[in-house]
Amino acid sequence: MSDSIGRLAVIGVGLIGGSLARALRKAGRVDEIVGCGRGRANLDEAVKLGVIDHYSHDISEAVRDADVVFLAAPLGAMRGAFDAMRATLPGHALITDGGSAKGSVVTDCREAAPELLRRFVPGHPIAGTENNGVAASFAELYQNRRVILTPLPENDSVAVARVRALWEACGAAVTEMSVEHHDEVLAATSHLPHMLAFGLVDMLARLKENDEIFRYAAGGFRDFTRIASSNPVMWRDICIANREALSPMLAAFAEEMTALADSIASADSDELLNIFERAKAARDRYVDGLT
Amino acid sequence: MSDSIGRLAVIGVGLIGGSLARALRKAGRVDEIVGCGRGRANLDEAVKLGVIDHYSHDISEAVRDADVVFLAAPLGAMRGAFDAMRATLPGHALITDGGSAKGSVVTDCREAAPELLRRFVPGHPIAGTENNGVAASFAELYQNRRVILTPLPENDSVAVARVRALWEACGAAVTEMSVEHHDEVLAATSHLPHMLAFGLVDMLARLKENDEIFRYAAGGFRDFTRIASSNPVMWRDICIANREALSPMLAAFAEEMTALADSIASADSDELLNIFERAKAARDRYVDGLT
Repeated sequence: MSDSIGRLAVIGVGLIGGSLARALRKAGRVDEIVGCGRGRANLDEAVKLGVIDHYSHDISEAVRDADVVFLAAPLGAMRGAFDAMRATLPGHALITDGGSAKGSVVTDCREAAPELLRRFVPGHPIAGTENNGVAASFAELYQNRRVILTPLPENDSVAVARVRALWEACGAAVTEMSVEHHDEVLAATSHLPHMLAFGLVDMLARLKENDEIFRYAAGGFRDFTRIASSNPVMWRDICIANREALSPMLAAFAEEMTALADSIASADSDELLNIFERAKAARDRYVDGLT
Repeated sequence: MSDSIGRLAVIGVGLIGGSLARALRKAGRVDEIVGCGRGRANLDEAVKLGVIDHYSHDISEAVRDADVVFLAAPLGAMRGAFDAMRATLPGHALITDGGSAKGSVVTDCREAAPELLRRFVPGHPIAGTENNGVAASFAELYQNRRVILTPLPENDSVAVARVRALWEACGAAVTEMSVEHHDEVLAATSHLPHMLAFGLVDMLARLKENDEIFRYAAGGFRDFTRIASSNPVMWRDICIANREALSPMLAAFAEEMTALADSIASADSDELLNIFERAKAARDRYVDGLT
């Protein structure tokens, strides 16, 4: 086992993939980086910026002779990627990914390329910015950020240790949990809030006189709805990929909001105060300490 | 009609009341400011900071000889304030307020002191910070901020013009709309988002292993839930005061979220993309231009 990577293949050279490439390069942990993607302009820029050394538009070409493959493709493209790399991936190569849902990616691997399960270690860096593309990537994105690995029963333990070492070399704090638990935690802290922000802005935009309504929105509204400016295609993919965890959670939240609407209608002072006090206490306790 | 105020009475000397006092003083529009509130320490600090000249704990005392009364008390205290000022308020004095809901304050005036309706011009400055108390107040809070006035059919037109001039002297952009429209607009842009943020944090705090869940919350979650750290008592009062507009809007939102949960469960790709694209377009169009 070596902590250094000869050839790294990055499938999807955007913010996430580009930042991993930059961080590993900066840490001196990689000799050669090949990029893969569809957009020529972005890949040319990635070469120009020194993020990758060269590229291919063909996954089976890109992973040839790779030691490590990092899948930073959209969730909807994962299955095709596993399928495409079957024929050419060297027998010793490790695979990991950066997808926001893990169950769907594991299913994709299991169905498209079950022989790769032993050396596919699913992962998810809890990091990002509002920008996309390789131009937005930077070597420090993962510094002091959490990365969740969800090792599979089929995984080789050496593969898990190497993927952990790779993220730690980028400055990340790596934790492990099950695929199912990851998908529940992310549904709660990320996917559900995005649904509420998208849903709220969409509802208001459909009200008559909506431009007047937005005119009176203040700072709190701007913060609350910031995540509704996220990429719609990416979020459609995340919703569908994590639908088993997200859909029941959103339905349960909707029920609670129906109950809250009733408490408001009946001016149930005690119940309203209980909810708001519990929420403020939790928010002040847990969230203000976050970076 | 004069644009200058001899004596201003500020009922509730916190962020909102204190900032109006400071702004009018700085603009040279007021000779004397009397404060009124329950907490001695805050009022002593207000005197020390030069925000008010003196104070009383008794509303009927505080409004004696006043030319203008600014009600910056909690919504739950408005009715008592109208009642308390009946006996001592000079016949020429104007009243305005800063409450986040307007229908309830108008009802309070109508029921507690109907003879004051002619010169009570309801208002709502769309401004604030996360801090409370007179120490958080500053003269520039209303600079370039919107202030909504909701003049009543009973209002004397000179009274409306003077209240407008008062806010304009603080640098605010004053607009007028009906009481009902104000309460709808604020339910949509402020009260509903607060319910969702309080509700989400409360739901997550009640999940088992909630401290672990919050540990994986990232920047988007922090922004989204910032308003869940707001004052629970104030928000209970706002919910109850604006329950006629807020409760049906929250119930409608809950129905939409139930439908969205169904679309996610059935992986309805087109519907999900439609919602997210409409929301992103509206958010990028309307909200990013806000200050």
